[in-house]
Amino acid sequence: MRSLPLSQIRLTDPFWTNWQKTLVDSTLPAIYKQLEETHRLSNFRRAAGLEEGGFEGKFWFDDSDVYKYLEAAAYGLAIKKSPVVRKQVDDTISLVLAAQQPDGYLNTFFQLKHPDLKYRNLHTMHEMYCGGHFIEAAVAFAESLGEKKLLVGAIKYADHLLNTFGPEKRRGYCGHEEIELALIRLSDVTKQAKYRELAHWMIEARGHSPSPYIEELADQESHALSPWARGMLLQQERYTGEYFQDHAPIREHDKIVGHAVRAMYLYIAAADLAADAADEKLDTALETIWTNLVSRRMYVTGGIGPSSKNEGFTEDFDLPNLSAYAETCAACGLVFWGQAMLQATANAEYADVMERALYNGALAGISLTGDKFFYDNPLESRGTHDRTPWFGCACCPPNIARLIGSLGKYVAGVNDSAFYLHIPVGLDVTTRLGGVNTKIEVKSNYPWSGEIEITVSPEKPTDFELLVRIPDWADDVSTDLVNSEDEADYESGYVRFARRWKAGDVVKVDFGIQPRWVESDPRVRDNLGRIALTYGPLIYAAEEHDLGFAPQLLSVDPELEVEVTESDILGGIKLLATEAISEREDFVEGLYAEVGTTGVRENDAKFIPYYAWNNRGPNSMQVWVRKG
Amino acid sequence: MRSLPLSQIRLTDPFWTNWQKTLVDSTLPAIYKQLEETHRLSNFRRAAGLEEGGFEGKFWFDDSDVYKYLEAAAYGLAIKKSPVVRKQVDDTISLVLAAQQPDGYLNTFFQLKHPDLKYRNLHTMHEMYCGGHFIEAAVAFAESLGEKKLLVGAIKYADHLLNTFGPEKRRGYCGHEEIELALIRLSDVTKQAKYRELAHWMIEARGHSPSPYIEELADQESHALSPWARGMLLQQERYTGEYFQDHAPIREHDKIVGHAVRAMYLYIAAADLAADAADEKLDTALETIWTNLVSRRMYVTGGIGPSSKNEGFTEDFDLPNLSAYAETCAACGLVFWGQAMLQATANAEYADVMERALYNGALAGISLTGDKFFYDNPLESRGTHDRTPWFGCACCPPNIARLIGSLGKYVAGVNDSAFYLHIPVGLDVTTRLGGVNTKIEVKSNYPWSGEIEITVSPEKPTDFELLVRIPDWADDVSTDLVNSEDEADYESGYVRFARRWKAGDVVKVDFGIQPRWVESDPRVRDNLGRIALTYGPLIYAAEEHDLGFAPQLLSVDPELEVEVTESDILGGIKLLATEAISEREDFVEGLYAEVGTTGVRENDAKFIPYYAWNNRGPNSMQVWVRKG
Repeated sequence: MRSLPLSQIRLTDPFWTNWQKTLVDSTLPAIYKQLEETHRLSNFRRAAGLEEGGFEGKFWFDDSDVYKYLEAAAYGLAIKKSPVVRKQVDDTISLVLAAQQPDGYLNTFFQLKHPDLKYRNLHTMHEMYCGGHFIEAAVAFAESLGEKKLLVGAIKYADHLLNTFGPEKRRGYCGHEEIELALIRLSDVTKQAKYRELAHWMIEARGHSPSPYIEELADQESHALSPWARGMLLQQERYTGEYFQDHAPIREHDKIVGHAVRAMYLYIAAADLAADAADEKLDTALETIWTNLVSRRMYVTGGIGPSSKNEGFTEDFDLPNLSAYAETCAACGLVFWGQAMLQATANAEYADVMERALYNGALAGISLTGDKFFYDNPLESRGTHDRTPWFGCACCPPNIARLIGSLGKYVAGVNDSAFYLHIPVGLDVTTRLGGVNTKIEVKSNYPWSGEIEITVSPEKPTDFELLVRIPDWADDVSTDLVNSEDEADYESGYVRFARRWKAGDVVKVDFGIQPRWVESDPRVRDNLGRIALTYGPLIYAAEEHDLGFAPQLLSVDPELEVEVTESDILGGIKLLATEAISEREDFVEGLYAEVGTTGVRENDAKFIPYYAWNNRGPNSMQVWVRKG
Repeated sequence: MRSLPLSQIRLTDPFWTNWQKTLVDSTLPAIYKQLEETHRLSNFRRAAGLEEGGFEGKFWFDDSDVYKYLEAAAYGLAIKKSPVVRKQVDDTISLVLAAQQPDGYLNTFFQLKHPDLKYRNLHTMHEMYCGGHFIEAAVAFAESLGEKKLLVGAIKYADHLLNTFGPEKRRGYCGHEEIELALIRLSDVTKQAKYRELAHWMIEARGHSPSPYIEELADQESHALSPWARGMLLQQERYTGEYFQDHAPIREHDKIVGHAVRAMYLYIAAADLAADAADEKLDTALETIWTNLVSRRMYVTGGIGPSSKNEGFTEDFDLPNLSAYAETCAACGLVFWGQAMLQATANAEYADVMERALYNGALAGISLTGDKFFYDNPLESRGTHDRTPWFGCACCPPNIARLIGSLGKYVAGVNDSAFYLHIPVGLDVTTRLGGVNTKIEVKSNYPWSGEIEITVSPEKPTDFELLVRIPDWADDVSTDLVNSEDEADYESGYVRFARRWKAGDVVKVDFGIQPRWVESDPRVRDNLGRIALTYGPLIYAAEEHDLGFAPQLLSVDPELEVEVTESDILGGIKLLATEAISEREDFVEGLYAEVGTTGVRENDAKFIPYYAWNNRGPNSMQVWVRKG
């Protein structure tokens, strides 16, 4: 199964068309402004010799934000014309290409600051990570807009890598995975196997002892590069490599460890390696890691990586809410990895997780106005969290931007004889099915409504399968193939219609969305005695703004009715409400007193979608409310 | 009011006599062994020229552990003879005095490693902190055992300080407060005002802008001293000084901030400054800081300083249980500061807090065997916490040791016409009251029983007041003056008998100890919906060892009867038990599922005193259990 090229698919439901409009009108110009103000673009000008000055900025991987912006912009411009964005993008592309060295190398930090120390410290310096995002941007322009200017540079960059690393050359791979998946994309667009081969070799090389990073430590000169360069390794008494997924050869990985974003990017590429040839051991390893992640280490929002210490994973069932790191980039990465696993297996369980991360953990990373961002996404706030226009390490803003822009790649999939609707958003697609050009139109107001209508229009009657995913949360699904007696069956979490289609055939599906209280595995100690409210794919949260008091004070009875109201707040949401009890805060006895000192009162508890929280100023918020 | 010299008071109840026996037989030899093995004693030998070699050890304040050991040993030897401890102490004292420079300076780190950088970095290097503990050890030997050998050295050290710092000399004070309170003790024992004057001047000098620490930053040479030396200041965008209580002049302090142990030690000395002369502003400041601490920033165990980041304070009501830092030293410090405030005011509220910290937050810092220690004291564990014989930064073991050894100084107080029993432990005292030598004998089995009997035996009939504190948790107290019609009255939390006493007069008090569930101010978000079980001064905890499952799974109904049983486990405790519900852990639905998926079962929930937890191996523990 493959995703649909963005040139063939258009999202049409109000929810996502609004987010994609915001992307082009607000997010992309806002990010460009930050790239300029924080000297990220100046660094390219300076490396190109167009401006005087050295490298400016806190991080040696600042270039990557420029590339991710370009990638998001390529998607945005395919969705909606914008002279402003177009101009900014063209300027940026020119700068990037002007800065690239004749030999293909490109990294403004090294070119401006340490031209003699290139590729001397792979574990910390993120050179290939930046290069991977350069390639992804180039591929996006080629695929979404048919523009190949950047691709020429990216190929030159990749060829330089091929001349530097590989089985006959140097054993080396980047401390932050990304180049692997990028080289695979480059291979797809150029039809050149050599890039995929280098990517696969890097994945295979990783995790064998001794790690090349240990040798790098001996390179005293390279310690000048970054204050972290040595510390990253030395902070551990012995090198375990888990932080970089460098702890074991890939087929021996048996749980999700280390830095969350790095892990996601590695396993996206590894899924491609597994698909390359029958590789049962790698298939099993990936399934095992995935299962560990989603059944023991994932927040209900699809956020992953609970700890700020390693921006990553800790122990099974360790999912604290207030201190949840759950980086926006990691949730985006989970959508990306989920897609890779889904395309390899056609198993809807992967799409369940993609949907969870997309509508909750990832989307919470961006404000409704499109110009403010969360880096970490806690499931509880006591009023101190607030989205901000930018970060010193600014990986998240362009990452959520590129996910929103490229969403058409994730919601559906095709092969020659089947169309899969993974996430029931509204969309228009024209693609070849059963050898015939076929238009598929999904009318949807998801996630606010679970009723969708799919109209299938092949140019002439033809046989293919139409598969619609039944979400894991849906327990009252009805399907109707209008004016037909044909029966659907079920396959790996999809309802399947296998038949001869003619123009104008209509399928109706109702996922029966109702408010639904969920609980956690009791081994998640932080959620014991707590429940979370959901509505279709959306996780809901209680926010002080709606309650007039901190949601931590709430106790709710899941047996009581939850009222669903259309609301025009927060861009138009469904507001959920139920009766609740809350503690009064007029405790007067000092910190501790006889049980029963605290008074309680009855309230109406209101809940909003988690992704929409903190759009009315900082205030207290809670996903997992007490059951009482 | 003053405390009783340890030579005049002896503790007699089973609880504390056992702890004091353990101190001498186990704790002191165990600490000595560690001091030797970790090269702390070698450093003194080397500084004295008795052994070859440089400074060895992780921390530049390692000397302080040797002094605190000596202080604890002085108390221990006054309680119980021990040839082993005596020999080790004598050897240690000889080493310390041999290492001291002829000019009085003493610090083995500087003498061995940086002889030219003495007093060049006061904010980080703890020279005066070490010196303060040297002085405290010397005072302890003089007061408890009448031995003045160490005192001669301490006076030389203090005189060297007097020649270096002061109003006419250099403006400087230690980044870690301690020297101030030590100089005050030295003044008391030597009757020399000049030491107290220097201490008071240092308290007054602190917190005025610009801080001398800012100037120290300009001293590039001193940066060689410690990797933290600059970082400690530079990690904040601007210098606030809160970490060192250097943020404002002392009379302007209005809440408790920064490093918890430092704060305690400063305010102990500040209470002396306030007592020195009528100083309403300082009195008010100290009361305000204290009230902020005990009504907004103190755990129910008397643990203080919730955060490991600054080993100190954060925000009001921020009291997380699992990650509670609540350093053992800070709880000891709270007992010490409480006493200083209590002696200034005779208000039992200070003793309430001392008792809370003593029996819970401080005592949990040491194993029942006396040779393993906690640095941080969480109120919840998921099985990863475990006491250990020693720490790289080993401040806590000798601190809890010196508190146990000197407990007679904290449980009672006198002035010429009154005897105060602050904490109703068993004790024998002979002191002068109403001008007459009087023996006071308290028979007690506290905290296991709330019934005590006080026998008063003046050499001849005399008038004085006998005051017994009514603990804040006691709501059913009865008192009986045997064979007398005299009535007691109440004064600032004490029941007072003011009369003419004759030999053999007996007062009986029953504090009516019953199991009691307490709750927190609802602004402590982490404790919402949770309750803690107490028994007299003891906070109880549920431990996996007694339950067979993690206590986080428990829900208890405070309306149900709590059964109290005598038990011989854990050194002989009262075991509390009640019926409870707990979640089953056979959840099979993946991480999240429809509410009601988790099954429950009925259990007997058993609770042990918090101080006694983790004495049967690491396992899950919880103080604040769910109310359900």
